[in-house]
Amino acid sequence: MTKESPQGGRLVIVGGAEDRENGKSVLRRFVELLPASQAPLFVLTAATQEPQAHWQTYSKAFGELGVEHCEPLHIEGREQANDRELADRVLESRGVYMTGGDQKRLLARLGGSLLCDAMRRAYVERGACIGGTSAGASAVSAYMLDPGPPQVHAERDEISLRAGLGFLLDVVIDQHFSERQRLGRLLGAVAHNPKLIGIGIDEDTALVVHRGHGCEVTGSGAVTLIDGRAMNSSFVRAGEREVAQLSDVGLHLLPACVSYRADGRIEPAEDEVRPMSARLHELVRQLCSASNVDESYVELG
Amino acid sequence: MTKESPQGGRLVIVGGAEDRENGKSVLRRFVELLPASQAPLFVLTAATQEPQAHWQTYSKAFGELGVEHCEPLHIEGREQANDRELADRVLESRGVYMTGGDQKRLLARLGGSLLCDAMRRAYVERGACIGGTSAGASAVSAYMLDPGPPQVHAERDEISLRAGLGFLLDVVIDQHFSERQRLGRLLGAVAHNPKLIGIGIDEDTALVVHRGHGCEVTGSGAVTLIDGRAMNSSFVRAGEREVAQLSDVGLHLLPACVSYRADGRIEPAEDEVRPMSARLHELVRQLCSASNVDESYVELG
Repeated sequence: MTKESPQGGRLVIVGGAEDRENGKSVLRRFVELLPASQAPLFVLTAATQEPQAHWQTYSKAFGELGVEHCEPLHIEGREQANDRELADRVLESRGVYMTGGDQKRLLARLGGSLLCDAMRRAYVERGACIGGTSAGASAVSAYMLDPGPPQVHAERDEISLRAGLGFLLDVVIDQHFSERQRLGRLLGAVAHNPKLIGIGIDEDTALVVHRGHGCEVTGSGAVTLIDGRAMNSSFVRAGEREVAQLSDVGLHLLPACVSYRADGRIEPAEDEVRPMSARLHELVRQLCSASNVDESYVELG
Repeated sequence: MTKESPQGGRLVIVGGAEDRENGKSVLRRFVELLPASQAPLFVLTAATQEPQAHWQTYSKAFGELGVEHCEPLHIEGREQANDRELADRVLESRGVYMTGGDQKRLLARLGGSLLCDAMRRAYVERGACIGGTSAGASAVSAYMLDPGPPQVHAERDEISLRAGLGFLLDVVIDQHFSERQRLGRLLGAVAHNPKLIGIGIDEDTALVVHRGHGCEVTGSGAVTLIDGRAMNSSFVRAGEREVAQLSDVGLHLLPACVSYRADGRIEPAEDEVRPMSARLHELVRQLCSASNVDESYVELG
């Protein structure tokens, strides 16, 4: 998967706190995956209240990694997000990197806009590379965690979802995953939404989705997948309320430096090449499936 | 499982912070499961540095729950733990309840002693009821977590184990489970020790093992089971070190008020009765298997 087919778009979904100053392994991989073009790479700062600071950090990092043409996308209102000329420039771009901040702010500004559609079109039709870190990672999928205050019993409590950007349909993503001990919370989201594959991404780590081809994990941490599709669940009454009883939830832990190909092969950075389990293979196929993206686009007059 | 067979011993494994003053549902269930006898119930305080305070709390609680004969077992050294007369009294007892504290202290004082053997014999041969909360819960199994300082990437780091009391052989138990977000840590223990079933018990909640008959969950929380026996794992090099890649870890979440019988039936407190999944059934059978206990006893001259 280091030789890329020109058509397939890529998602680089980063668990936050990626190295932006030294080895920059996650950002370096993102840059490697950008299609060759004279068009710009955009840094989308719509999630944050400090767009200038984020822009300075990333324009410096991407410059050091050899990106010649990098531009900020400081979207602060929906009018901007529905600017057709800007959307057209994004459609032609090599890719977009979404900074951290608050995923609700990002979606409030971008959800259902021409710009959002242009990003998905660039990914699907033009092989652009879409990156997102922290809040920008949560926003990648069609369903987005809206956790509210911390819950003690997150693994059995209902977790609210919101509509995300739709680059992946049947997925819910959590970031800063090991660092903030969010396994229980993601399990809760999957328990109540077994249609969704739960993806937990550690800091300084990315899940890369090669649309139609496979997935890889890169960086210094790991990616956790929670699969509730074969689970059994029922509700029982405990005290005042009903709680879920779950069995047969599948859990997979994917460390960095490994590629999981849609054809069932695993490619570690070392020389070992092994087949993956049937369940993991099925998950990988679904994750990178070319149809696992929202292709309905806004029609604005 | 509310009608108890006279032979089968029971383990009441409590995730800590059980209600000792008001409804006392967990302690009430423990008392219900004590075999009828004029013999005492012992409160073992060997895990704590405040044995008197724990004894006062539990003697009051058990008294209020109708236990007529309750005695402290303030074991502070191995000589006491190898006192044959005391061990014989424990063998004849209705049961032992182990307080919280530090499981290492508990094992340093009791591991491999006549008293420890007497407790296991009372459980296996005389149908006694053995309870343990917090550190007392961790100590129940043959393998005991020795977590050391908190780990960010617990789910992929090696977790040290120590030898526990051996009431369950193929098990590792963690307590205060949801409250202290320990799913990652327990997953790490199972990932590196796939022979062991990981059991995470919430506060004010007990996993009750009816030896040979089944399990139940009681209290206000839930019990999480992690099953790594069918998992695939391999090690890949990420940066400086090898990290585990796991797939097909099984996860089950069992809320309170449910019994899981060895014959495959689930008995909610409500009227619904359903079969359980094959994997969960197999886990329950193994957990409550009559042979899932260390029956090797110390020979002291």
